[in-house]
Amino acid sequence: MEKIGVGLIGTGYMGKCHALAWNAVSGVFGGELKPELVTLAEVNEELAAARAKDFGFAKSTGNWRDMLADPDIHIISITTPNEFHPEMAIAALEAGKHVYCEKPMAPSFEDAQKMLEASRKSGKKTFLGYNYIQNPMMRRIRDLLNAGEIGDVLQIRLEMDEDFMANPDDEWGIKSGAASGFGALDDFGVHTMSLLMALDLRIAKVMCHMTKPYATRKDASGNDKTVETYDAATVLFELENGGNGTLQLNRSAWGRKGRIAVQIFGSKGSIVYDQERMNEMHVYKAEGDVAGQGYTTILAGPAHEPYDRFIPAPGHGLGFNDLKIIEVNEILKSLQGQESHLIDFERGIFIEGLVQSMAKSHEQSGWVTV
Amino acid sequence: MEKIGVGLIGTGYMGKCHALAWNAVSGVFGGELKPELVTLAEVNEELAAARAKDFGFAKSTGNWRDMLADPDIHIISITTPNEFHPEMAIAALEAGKHVYCEKPMAPSFEDAQKMLEASRKSGKKTFLGYNYIQNPMMRRIRDLLNAGEIGDVLQIRLEMDEDFMANPDDEWGIKSGAASGFGALDDFGVHTMSLLMALDLRIAKVMCHMTKPYATRKDASGNDKTVETYDAATVLFELENGGNGTLQLNRSAWGRKGRIAVQIFGSKGSIVYDQERMNEMHVYKAEGDVAGQGYTTILAGPAHEPYDRFIPAPGHGLGFNDLKIIEVNEILKSLQGQESHLIDFERGIFIEGLVQSMAKSHEQSGWVTV
Amino acid sequence: MEKIGVGLIGTGYMGKCHALAWNAVSGVFGGELKPELVTLAEVNEELAAARAKDFGFAKSTGNWRDMLADPDIHIISITTPNEFHPEMAIAALEAGKHVYCEKPMAPSFEDAQKMLEASRKSGKKTFLGYNYIQNPMMRRIRDLLNAGEIGDVLQIRLEMDEDFMANPDDEWGIKSGAASGFGALDDFGVHTMSLLMALDLRIAKVMCHMTKPYATRKDASGNDKTVETYDAATVLFELENGGNGTLQLNRSAWGRKGRIAVQIFGSKGSIVYDQERMNEMHVYKAEGDVAGQGYTTILAGPAHEPYDRFIPAPGHGLGFNDLKIIEVNEILKSLQGQESHLIDFERGIFIEGLVQSMAKSHEQSGWVTV
Amino acid sequence: MEKIGVGLIGTGYMGKCHALAWNAVSGVFGGELKPELVTLAEVNEELAAARAKDFGFAKSTGNWRDMLADPDIHIISITTPNEFHPEMAIAALEAGKHVYCEKPMAPSFEDAQKMLEASRKSGKKTFLGYNYIQNPMMRRIRDLLNAGEIGDVLQIRLEMDEDFMANPDDEWGIKSGAASGFGALDDFGVHTMSLLMALDLRIAKVMCHMTKPYATRKDASGNDKTVETYDAATVLFELENGGNGTLQLNRSAWGRKGRIAVQIFGSKGSIVYDQERMNEMHVYKAEGDVAGQGYTTILAGPAHEPYDRFIPAPGHGLGFNDLKIIEVNEILKSLQGQESHLIDFERGIFIEGLVQSMAKSHEQSGWVTV
Repeated sequence: MEKIGVGLIGTGYMGKCHALAWNAVSGVFGGELKPELVTLAEVNEELAAARAKDFGFAKSTGNWRDMLADPDIHIISITTPNEFHPEMAIAALEAGKHVYCEKPMAPSFEDAQKMLEASRKSGKKTFLGYNYIQNPMMRRIRDLLNAGEIGDVLQIRLEMDEDFMANPDDEWGIKSGAASGFGALDDFGVHTMSLLMALDLRIAKVMCHMTKPYATRKDASGNDKTVETYDAATVLFELENGGNGTLQLNRSAWGRKGRIAVQIFGSKGSIVYDQERMNEMHVYKAEGDVAGQGYTTILAGPAHEPYDRFIPAPGHGLGFNDLKIIEVNEILKSLQGQESHLIDFERGIFIEGLVQSMAKSHEQSGWVTV
Repeated sequence: MEKIGVGLIGTGYMGKCHALAWNAVSGVFGGELKPELVTLAEVNEELAAARAKDFGFAKSTGNWRDMLADPDIHIISITTPNEFHPEMAIAALEAGKHVYCEKPMAPSFEDAQKMLEASRKSGKKTFLGYNYIQNPMMRRIRDLLNAGEIGDVLQIRLEMDEDFMANPDDEWGIKSGAASGFGALDDFGVHTMSLLMALDLRIAKVMCHMTKPYATRKDASGNDKTVETYDAATVLFELENGGNGTLQLNRSAWGRKGRIAVQIFGSKGSIVYDQERMNEMHVYKAEGDVAGQGYTTILAGPAHEPYDRFIPAPGHGLGFNDLKIIEVNEILKSLQGQESHLIDFERGIFIEGLVQSMAKSHEQSGWVTV
Repeated sequence: MEKIGVGLIGTGYMGKCHALAWNAVSGVFGGELKPELVTLAEVNEELAAARAKDFGFAKSTGNWRDMLADPDIHIISITTPNEFHPEMAIAALEAGKHVYCEKPMAPSFEDAQKMLEASRKSGKKTFLGYNYIQNPMMRRIRDLLNAGEIGDVLQIRLEMDEDFMANPDDEWGIKSGAASGFGALDDFGVHTMSLLMALDLRIAKVMCHMTKPYATRKDASGNDKTVETYDAATVLFELENGGNGTLQLNRSAWGRKGRIAVQIFGSKGSIVYDQERMNEMHVYKAEGDVAGQGYTTILAGPAHEPYDRFIPAPGHGLGFNDLKIIEVNEILKSLQGQESHLIDFERGIFIEGLVQSMAKSHEQSGWVTV
Repeated sequence: MEKIGVGLIGTGYMGKCHALAWNAVSGVFGGELKPELVTLAEVNEELAAARAKDFGFAKSTGNWRDMLADPDIHIISITTPNEFHPEMAIAALEAGKHVYCEKPMAPSFEDAQKMLEASRKSGKKTFLGYNYIQNPMMRRIRDLLNAGEIGDVLQIRLEMDEDFMANPDDEWGIKSGAASGFGALDDFGVHTMSLLMALDLRIAKVMCHMTKPYATRKDASGNDKTVETYDAATVLFELENGGNGTLQLNRSAWGRKGRIAVQIFGSKGSIVYDQERMNEMHVYKAEGDVAGQGYTTILAGPAHEPYDRFIPAPGHGLGFNDLKIIEVNEILKSLQGQESHLIDFERGIFIEGLVQSMAKSHEQSGWVTV
């Protein structure tokens, strides 16, 4: 048994999620390599200290750079707003730390490239927080595709919808400003691209159309302010294998809370999945008696690795946070040189490039080859 | 009470459906105008005679032109393959008959235009068999939209999927030949366009991408034969009202049997529907306590006109064939000068034009203004 | 080809349903024996005449006894309130007519027995309107059970719920009076017993508990009036084959509109069905890779007889009224001496007896052997 | 901030679940009182040591009695097979420790009573592991009931089904022996009784029927051995408030993995829930326009306490293990004298008594007043 020292920057939505995962992974998975929660960094010392106690970190700091020189820290979790990713990731890599960074890599493609370069120079490992690919159901889908269970993949439709930007009466906020990126496309749409990657499906060509449900929003003074980002994006794509599909991304979709709907049509069957019911998947196989054909609803269970590490009984259900625990375990496996299932900066840059191609397609109103 | 004499051409899928509807409409709806089933035409006299007995037609013929001069026939139902629509519809109109023709109007746009011209000249009424718009659930959706219940329509996604062309081992048939049209787009995709029309949503601009899941199929001799039609089509569109959306049409979608999935996102809520569960719709309204918000699943019932004409109890379920009975009743209403809910040649030509614009967009790989 | 003359008594919910079915059956099924709609009887001549025109009956009458002596009438459909069934059915049988009577046979068991005796004496055929057994999905379930696809039937749960008596503010009506029977048990609960019969499952022993959600209701003058019937009934039962199960019947179940939920657990799998989604069934088989096991959702289609007589395409959906058309076709088959799938008075009396045993069990608060 | 020392006995299904929860609770909830994982006990020293490292316990032991005298341990988690609960719980209480014991209390009612007596004498707190009551959806249901949102509770149906005993080819194991208890009733059926308790619904009278799907199973030598427990139990009950309902418990229900289906019918609406989709609930209210009435599907979110402690975004989903974290947090609240939502031995004995009454009813084939 060995230890790996962890530093974490940020304690918001994803910061907490990382903290819980680092804390839980050993209990859930056992494993030889044990994380040691060394330092927690936040914007000020007080907050950092309070959270460190809750999350079980030994030390805390109001200055994340304090962690760079700490020899007890081997990996740094970065969960700050996207604009801080490049500076932090590059500094951490240069300091000889492995980097575990939330997606997407960076608001600008240039910065993402710099992050990649830094990682190459450092010889350290990098990991991106594309947690949805860790769902045992998603792994099962990949295995079915690879085994040819539904034949050739002909068409895939991905929808990712939430409604946190759906209320037209909500004030103009940073997500409406161009500095935050394109909008739905990179804000959360990259998750759908990570799923394609995890399923070994490679996009060759895109046609993207982005829209603004609301052209303006009130600012704090009650004046109309122009919305600069696109809350909805739709992408046609062709796959390298000859198949095709669509991404439909919408963060203004009233009623949708955590929807990532996947439909995969193959030459011998099809697969359907929706993240809002993340413990289920549906498989149709065109075989046997027609009178008995239909979608089979499979509930996640111990037969779907690594569900059994959490619960020995099927149908009892994993939660969203459990995906992060699986992700962290994959990181530990990678750090031990074992086969793992992750997206690093090398693969992540492909997703960032996809976003650029899509944005370019939108501007040009035409198809763009990736 | 008055009578209207009916002639019917064809006894296949839709022919039978028309026959059953003409026969049932008076029992279901009562109404002043009663259809009289006069003549049934088929490709030969024997088949026509046999079916006429089953369907309750007084006369039968192997030559549909026999009906043109019959003064007892006032309306002719045309349910033959699409390529015969123009000749028959134009002849019927010129003979002074009303025309009730299955969708789409014709394989070629020029022919559809000739049909429209004939109808204008004749002064007779025309009706197209876009039966899905007759579902009480669909009318309810229209009413909700018009009443502003979900606010402005921001995005609409329509998927129409079946799997009758999904088997790569099926032989090359007429639906794989260019003479049958473009493929999924006009073969059944026009139904989704009729729904948009019925919901008073008008497409302004389209970007279409059509694909061939299987490039070839075996002919009867076992040789590879090139597939000329597109079994799948995806269309991005913008609406005149500023909203946008997609059509996803696929007749090779294993597992889907009669899916017409509709998602409508508005500024105050959303509506979801799937024809495979045609007696249900789901409405989300962003109002009241957040803890109680969610999609409400509404089962069709007497509160949704004209369900009550079929069954006085809610949740008992209409069937596909019942939609045709409603359609025929709308025709009877129209013929009596009452307000009705139908798509005639004047409105139908807009759908045919949409198909042309979409096909053009596909060829040009770019947006086309309708 | 032959004709069979039909007389129909009643034009309410079920009367209209019979009329539509008699009218449609030949168009849907073809078949050698054609029904001829001879006479429609209602409580007065005017109503009878108006409905006869709508429903296509040649004659009408305000006195149902007029039909008894009519040699053109061979079968009489009885759709009046249950209390009139015995008089009408016995008179019709004595007049040498076949009888097609809505369920249940009669409010009193003695009357039901008299009806059975009359049928035996007459040598005529009798048919009860247990239409839910005609659903192609239900036939498919029977076939699966008989083929041993889910092994031995170990437990079956049936729930039948509607909410037409759920509003406590509704006035006291005839369904709250003891003259109408026991309440949910015989009012609609008999349908669940017909399903067991159709599935060849025979109840041996019952334990019944009936309850009154509301002890009183307001009468028309606003005074409290005691409710005499039980809007809810729950029955434990043992099957002759050693299995067991429950009936849960509730006509005061807010939110349920036409629910007949069936769960059948066997030694090798299970089957789930809900009439509110009458075109679906779900089958679980404990075979093959555990990772792929789950309920398969089967959509009704041409593979499920006789769906194809209505629609050649799967997943398009039958409706409630279509079940009656299938029922009438089964009657025509029976009248031609063909194998049919129906419940006649001989089998119907078993259901009536079950109701008696259940009521007795409730009174005695103990198990009763059937 | 204060610390509470935790000792845990057992590392199986529930042992691991407790360990994960004790470890995670502070990170998820913050809170003043922090658990300190002191000692882990297993059947031998080696296993205990290995698991202690994974789960973060400071010490380990092969003899659980070692913990009794340890002043650093304030609460002992008992997760061993039910037969060991009494000895361990009583010893812990006598040693002045709080006790957190998995359900049910004990295989025999006498032992459960002794546990209660010990707890009363000790003045220490006791907690039972009825984790399903901790689901935010279940709390929401309780709040809706208490607020009268669906009016008076008239009928409640609870089904709890899994299939771990469904395979007739599985060998005879301890769960088939009488020493393990009655079978489904106490093995897992007590969970449904905890839900009723959590919803403030009190059973007054029961009628129970237990059945054995398989009379014998093969022992290890391949000989038939009599099954002594009942894998299925059905219970009719009356509530103190005048309502009624059923429990249907089956651990041989092929296809069901973690089903706890709840249907609650009230005078103004109804509520439906299924643990297999534990992040959803469905509410029907009989109010407003009939055309818009239906079940509203509510996805768990921050509006449903304490979901927001896990994830700030709605619809992302809690998992089964998260329920245990909530349970442990309730324990910490209780230990700090705050209001909490738990079942202690005082309330737990009522559930044990219910089981006894049900078993007695089964033996007597009649109703038993609780």
